Amino acid sequence: MKFGIVARRDKEAALKLAYKVYDFLKVSGYEVYVDTDTHRYLAEFQEEDVLPLEDFDVDFIIVIGGDGTILRVEHKTKKEIPLLGINMGTLGFLTEVEPHEAFFALSKLIEGDYHIDERIKLRTYLNGENVVPDALNEVAILTGIPGKIIHLRYYIDEGLADEIRADGLIVSTPTGSTGYAMSSGGPFVDPRLDVIVIAPLAPIALSSRPMIVPSYSKIDVRNMALTREIILAIDGQFYTYLEPETEITIKLSPRRAKFVRFSNEVYPKYTMKIKRKF
Amino acid sequence: MKFGIVARRDKEAALKLAYKVYDFLKVSGYEVYVDTDTHRYLAEFQEEDVLPLEDFDVDFIIVIGGDGTILRVEHKTKKEIPLLGINMGTLGFLTEVEPHEAFFALSKLIEGDYHIDERIKLRTYLNGENVVPDALNEVAILTGIPGKIIHLRYYIDEGLADEIRADGLIVSTPTGSTGYAMSSGGPFVDPRLDVIVIAPLAPIALSSRPMIVPSYSKIDVRNMALTREIILAIDGQFYTYLEPETEITIKLSPRRAKFVRFSNEVYPKYTMKIKRKF
Amino acid sequence: MKFGIVARRDKEAALKLAYKVYDFLKVSGYEVYVDTDTHRYLAEFQEEDVLPLEDFDVDFIIVIGGDGTILRVEHKTKKEIPLLGINMGTLGFLTEVEPHEAFFALSKLIEGDYHIDERIKLRTYLNGENVVPDALNEVAILTGIPGKIIHLRYYIDEGLADEIRADGLIVSTPTGSTGYAMSSGGPFVDPRLDVIVIAPLAPIALSSRPMIVPSYSKIDVRNMALTREIILAIDGQFYTYLEPETEITIKLSPRRAKFVRFSNEVYPKYTMKIKRKF
Amino acid sequence: MKFGIVARRDKEAALKLAYKVYDFLKVSGYEVYVDTDTHRYLAEFQEEDVLPLEDFDVDFIIVIGGDGTILRVEHKTKKEIPLLGINMGTLGFLTEVEPHEAFFALSKLIEGDYHIDERIKLRTYLNGENVVPDALNEVAILTGIPGKIIHLRYYIDEGLADEIRADGLIVSTPTGSTGYAMSSGGPFVDPRLDVIVIAPLAPIALSSRPMIVPSYSKIDVRNMALTREIILAIDGQFYTYLEPETEITIKLSPRRAKFVRFSNEVYPKYTMKIKRKF
Repeated sequence: MKFGIVARRDKEAALKLAYKVYDFLKVSGYEVYVDTDTHRYLAEFQEEDVLPLEDFDVDFIIVIGGDGTILRVEHKTKKEIPLLGINMGTLGFLTEVEPHEAFFALSKLIEGDYHIDERIKLRTYLNGENVVPDALNEVAILTGIPGKIIHLRYYIDEGLADEIRADGLIVSTPTGSTGYAMSSGGPFVDPRLDVIVIAPLAPIALSSRPMIVPSYSKIDVRNMALTREIILAIDGQFYTYLEPETEITIKLSPRRAKFVRFSNEVYPKYTMKIKRKF
Repeated sequence: MKFGIVARRDKEAALKLAYKVYDFLKVSGYEVYVDTDTHRYLAEFQEEDVLPLEDFDVDFIIVIGGDGTILRVEHKTKKEIPLLGINMGTLGFLTEVEPHEAFFALSKLIEGDYHIDERIKLRTYLNGENVVPDALNEVAILTGIPGKIIHLRYYIDEGLADEIRADGLIVSTPTGSTGYAMSSGGPFVDPRLDVIVIAPLAPIALSSRPMIVPSYSKIDVRNMALTREIILAIDGQFYTYLEPETEITIKLSPRRAKFVRFSNEVYPKYTMKIKRKF
Repeated sequence: MKFGIVARRDKEAALKLAYKVYDFLKVSGYEVYVDTDTHRYLAEFQEEDVLPLEDFDVDFIIVIGGDGTILRVEHKTKKEIPLLGINMGTLGFLTEVEPHEAFFALSKLIEGDYHIDERIKLRTYLNGENVVPDALNEVAILTGIPGKIIHLRYYIDEGLADEIRADGLIVSTPTGSTGYAMSSGGPFVDPRLDVIVIAPLAPIALSSRPMIVPSYSKIDVRNMALTREIILAIDGQFYTYLEPETEITIKLSPRRAKFVRFSNEVYPKYTMKIKRKF
Repeated sequence: MKFGIVARRDKEAALKLAYKVYDFLKVSGYEVYVDTDTHRYLAEFQEEDVLPLEDFDVDFIIVIGGDGTILRVEHKTKKEIPLLGINMGTLGFLTEVEPHEAFFALSKLIEGDYHIDERIKLRTYLNGENVVPDALNEVAILTGIPGKIIHLRYYIDEGLADEIRADGLIVSTPTGSTGYAMSSGGPFVDPRLDVIVIAPLAPIALSSRPMIVPSYSKIDVRNMALTREIILAIDGQFYTYLEPETEITIKLSPRRAKFVRFSNEVYPKYTMKIKRKF
């Protein structure tokens, strides 16, 4: 088995735990790689084990951090590598274990005592081309100028779903339903479902509502006010300004995210975390 | 082909159109039945063609009325008979054509130029037994005393999903998502999806949110305040008081509702109707 | 100084604390009365000090219980007597001190080291007559049959404010804004304000919104579906069925509720309690 | 009587009507001024009647446009001059008459057959200094990067009201309650009230709610994540980036906006417009 290790860079405890995990796996005789960014913040890792995330070709990646770190790994890796998340963030909807469980979790992983939780991702096409990362949480189409509404139309499989004047539109996976989509009034969506949440962000019309559509839907978004700049934000990590006339299409990605899980529990694991959002 | 006819009883135009449809189908040589209730309000139908809804054993039922009439037919019929709804109600989320299109629609139906839109239903078990109708829209578990909150816990596949103090809990199909569930803050759900919406009604806790769960979920609801009477309301049609300690379980029904459709259109057909709700 | 004492009847600790307060005040030489209901649940009080709440004519009433107990006292007493609430409930938006602070609070009260927090109440007129208690929290006009919507129009100073099909309509004081009105989507209202919150309960139309109107407004509510029974619920305590054609008018009451307070704090005292609602 | 005239610049019909109004008032013998911007888009006005808005010192300003044009006039004028709004926008919450009523309205104005509707405004202090325009609608404190939440604390009269992680915070007058505050979940507020709406924009915590506070409140907002840039947007017209550590204070402005009204009607005038928001 080959392992990759990525840690949150702004938290010393995460970097230290990353080193312990690295050391434990090396001592146990495994091939272990550390990503360049983590190495930049903690120099102890051996030079020959350092690789850019983009080049990781391992069986598992141990991610020590919060959901943000996991999203970064998902955006950068080129293969569908299962991630084991050790929570060094706040709520940790995506991480699986707490730091004190790290080595127990690694043992179970090595012994094969786990299962893989696959999550859908969304792929965005700009004028027909996919040049941006897949979204594990959400694709947000936002006003380029905070506070200035944009005017959008969105279509499901060529049928007009709604026309909104709003701060933006959130197109979310079930995984992302506890994030930006929920702040926009969307429901909790069971992570086992293959559906997409579409939620307008602060719409002017009171009759605009979140929608749940099949994951096989083709979602087209059109900017109706061509003088207004719009922003595309993927998972709160990747940002790009779009030309006003850009044709935006969102569809199920052929890639899925894979997470190492030790339990199948959804309830109350996720629903209790919602209550602790702050 | 055998036809059944049911009309809304409180609207003369519906009864008159029912007679015209009856006459047209009889003249065209088909076997046609009219339900006892419709006959009670319009005596012109021939006695030998009158049958209780429960005994209908036909190929199609022509329903002339609103969504309420369709729900009543769904509750009473014993077989999965496709319905063609002619809208004599207000918005008509379930009906397919307007009155002026009635005979054009009948012709297409007779010619086989249609398809069947199947919708999931929910079955309710009270202490393990199913003695109430299946829900096409929603199962509502409500306070027996308006304004007095009830205290419920609900479980998805044995896992605690939430504990609420609220006026009630709405467990809805995608078909019902535009009804009571939406009034409770739930999203629009594409009718093609096999999911269930669970929405608390006026919960005290601000952190209680609507949820979308798989249609294969087993949903258990428990009344935690055994001094408080609760009501079970199915599709706003069937009502019953429940003993406080009743164990309520809701699951996908083996039966589906079947609707004759002439188009596959979902968008903007349904989403525009949401905006016209009043 | 004369004192009245009322305790929550279903909690032994409240009854016991009531007796200690009674004893302390008697020993200190004050005239003290206990309400008949409290006495019925704890016999130790001297018979000659027992009075119905309706006949209380004292300087202060010490209420040991939750907000429900305070609302009951407000409904029954005939004079505007300042209340000191000792919290034996859950959140206690209306109570001022916790049980362990009871005697410290009493000392401050006796020393005059307090101020009076006045809160507006709402008076309801049915066909022009006021025969129901004033509301300290809210007047709720509700469907008589849970799950069956009612159709209402409401007018502010003779102008049509909205027409709704809903489970009900909540007309709330600032004091009640953290209760039923908030469950219906209303905002937190600073208790110092003289305004009224009007919030539809689970309305069908997505465009129906809570409103904030001046406390001097005359609010008229009319039932548009005269076949539908409606319920009037005041503070979740007083209930009555209304004839469908009853003309309901809600106005500022000439009476105010008065609470003994030891601090002027609103923030974060109330806003933090909102977060702990469950 | 002296008049000022301002028209929406991007709508020819508004400019043409402005000229007719100008001509009518000149012919009637009044002193009339046109603002420099309007003149730039329509050259017909006499040079000697052209003045910058900032220098207007007239009895009334006739504003031909939508709410945006009125907000612009309010920001630029230095005196509290009553405005008569002729609606050339969409809904026109602030304008008083439609174009076809323009001359009838002018006659009533000249005859003194009107009253003045005063509306509160909010003044913003940045590190104690007021260098930005007063808000007639709202002060919005927004994330500088769309989609990246900011972390704020806000205080009412030095008491912590809430701590939020959100896209922003909307602090609104009753006039602005139908705008950005409503898109953020706030209620409709009767324009006669002297209150302030505080509404978080897409907050992460489900327990964060809109608040209604007295207009005499001192509202302090602090940015808790000093690495995050924030934007101040006033009435959707005036924008400025703020240093992260800027101390923001919002209070009632000593200035009020004044509108010429021919009726006192609030209901259903405003509430019906809410339903037509799109």
